[in-house]
Amino acid sequence: MIYLDHAATTRPNARALERAGVFYQTTWFNPSALYAGGTEAARAVRAARESLLSRIADPFVHELVFTSGGTEADNQAIFCGAKRGNAVATLGEHSAVFSAFKELKGRGVEPRFAPLCADGSVNGEELLRLVDEKTSFVSVVHVNSETGAVNDICALSKAVKQKNPRTLFHSDGVQAFGKIPVRLPKEIDLYSVSAHKIGGVKGVGALYKAKSLRSFTYQFGGGQESDFRSGTENVFGICCFSYAAEEVFSELPVNEERVAALRELLFSRLDQEIFTRLSSERGTPYILTVSAKGLRGAVLQQLLSAQGVFAGTGSACSSKKPFSRVLEACGYPQETLYGVLRFSFSPQTTEEEVLAGAEIINRAARELKSRL
Amino acid sequence: MIYLDHAATTRPNARALERAGVFYQTTWFNPSALYAGGTEAARAVRAARESLLSRIADPFVHELVFTSGGTEADNQAIFCGAKRGNAVATLGEHSAVFSAFKELKGRGVEPRFAPLCADGSVNGEELLRLVDEKTSFVSVVHVNSETGAVNDICALSKAVKQKNPRTLFHSDGVQAFGKIPVRLPKEIDLYSVSAHKIGGVKGVGALYKAKSLRSFTYQFGGGQESDFRSGTENVFGICCFSYAAEEVFSELPVNEERVAALRELLFSRLDQEIFTRLSSERGTPYILTVSAKGLRGAVLQQLLSAQGVFAGTGSACSSKKPFSRVLEACGYPQETLYGVLRFSFSPQTTEEEVLAGAEIINRAARELKSRL
Repeated sequence: MIYLDHAATTRPNARALERAGVFYQTTWFNPSALYAGGTEAARAVRAARESLLSRIADPFVHELVFTSGGTEADNQAIFCGAKRGNAVATLGEHSAVFSAFKELKGRGVEPRFAPLCADGSVNGEELLRLVDEKTSFVSVVHVNSETGAVNDICALSKAVKQKNPRTLFHSDGVQAFGKIPVRLPKEIDLYSVSAHKIGGVKGVGALYKAKSLRSFTYQFGGGQESDFRSGTENVFGICCFSYAAEEVFSELPVNEERVAALRELLFSRLDQEIFTRLSSERGTPYILTVSAKGLRGAVLQQLLSAQGVFAGTGSACSSKKPFSRVLEACGYPQETLYGVLRFSFSPQTTEEEVLAGAEIINRAARELKSRL
Repeated sequence: MIYLDHAATTRPNARALERAGVFYQTTWFNPSALYAGGTEAARAVRAARESLLSRIADPFVHELVFTSGGTEADNQAIFCGAKRGNAVATLGEHSAVFSAFKELKGRGVEPRFAPLCADGSVNGEELLRLVDEKTSFVSVVHVNSETGAVNDICALSKAVKQKNPRTLFHSDGVQAFGKIPVRLPKEIDLYSVSAHKIGGVKGVGALYKAKSLRSFTYQFGGGQESDFRSGTENVFGICCFSYAAEEVFSELPVNEERVAALRELLFSRLDQEIFTRLSSERGTPYILTVSAKGLRGAVLQQLLSAQGVFAGTGSACSSKKPFSRVLEACGYPQETLYGVLRFSFSPQTTEEEVLAGAEIINRAARELKSRL
């Protein structure tokens, strides 16, 4: 198996799973319980919170709310943060932001979408033009999950605040967290992350939020997570997230460099007469999106999977259109859109996998082309 | 350790954990991915859904939406179901319903609360009196988590529909599911359950919903869970839930009878000069709530925990009042409220545990009393 779809999900980190095992086997108590086992579970959640928080934020400025995943973190940010006027996002958002923004309309908030540049990053000038005195919320994805383009969220958040200091700035960091370096400046009020993209398990995520934001309750109940998100804490998943993060953050710069080399290696080995590169070199090293012009990416994906190579297409999410709205917003012609394949890496991806993968990919594409 | 707080959470079922292990070890793919590993994960989620659905519902009438827990299922039911007019709940609701109901006010829906009988069940007549032509939603907890009282939700849902056929009927079934028998009649539109109360893991729950209910999207994004609840599926947690349910449902009547005997055994062994019984015999066998009059339940809980006996107090959730609002609503005097201890059982609880536990409980209570 040559798995090149790590942006969809990646294998849970074996060491993190093993360390967290104690929360299934012995410390399975309810963290709200006031006896020994419960307080031990609560302590573990607190330690995970502090550890994850300090990875990218200043504990004096931000706090961290555990959620059931990146989608919930995005939804909480948007529905608690965008309550009036208008809200601005980009056309490059993941559907967890994009669909929630469309829902805003029914809740009395006007959604606005800023256009993209060809590489999938947002056109910053156009974004700022959409921000006015009635803008309550801005959301800019950190790493575009379909092209890998990186938005300069630090600069953009500062520019947005300069134009309207009361606007909340959110970024979906699901494809960035643990992969590219970031320190959240105080201008970024909200930042969403997901555990299962970095070796944690599915069903866990977190929302970094400015401590100054109150009235941010998303789930109502027993008052867990400082009342921002009630519900019995997923102790195993939370701790596993923190353990997996320890590993990716300790090696982040090394991994980034190594994975960037793999991305270039893969592209250099792909048949240049068939594949066009859509991902910019300045994007995250973890994603290489290409288009096999004239071919169907989805068909190619099936051929590859039959030979043990797993890749993504334009969008993992089912959609009525057979191609990605995000890539369409980059301005690519239909012929390019149909042929999209996304290869995405993990720190564990090897050169051997990339070399063997490239051969299989070329062979499958040539075969498919010959059938036309 | 003598653990008698299974209503707070219970030990994950070892066999269910082991069976589900495959979704951490090998089938960790994204169920939205269209290649073999992804479709295999999707198939497992589908099988778990069908299995859990048919345990208590008719697949022609109801469908099942996986959530991150009982709290999310309650919140989804309430915020998607109670959109206008007024909404009626009982004073015996878990805070996942109670706090969400209080939030309704700010969203333009008037919350109403029906009073309780002494055992913690709702006063049905008073509940029906609160239902009128503007009632969009009624929520009645199936098993009161603090006294164990069982509400006849089948009869109540029918009576509510008779009074207003357009009213949605929801029940929080978290303490009932897998413990007492129920088949959802078509009059129950929504029913919430949680995995970790029956040997599944924390972070997973489900909402049974009438198939006829559309516009029930709670979390927006990639369209998972038939678009009712987007976000990458927690495959491990979902399958573990289904495996744990297999076991409790296959033994449900046997367990019920055995646990009822344990409850009576425990109460018969408690010092009758100290402990008053609050739980009715007609309530769920899984919960025995008592009050050590004149003593503080919270202090007794700490003394017990130091000796390896773990029990709950009035409410696991932190609250500004030092006693439970639910038990207060049963009409108990303050002296009784302060002394509350909740013992709750699992199918694995043994007679030996109960007998040894009773001795330790009596000794601790007598010691505490002697100190006064």
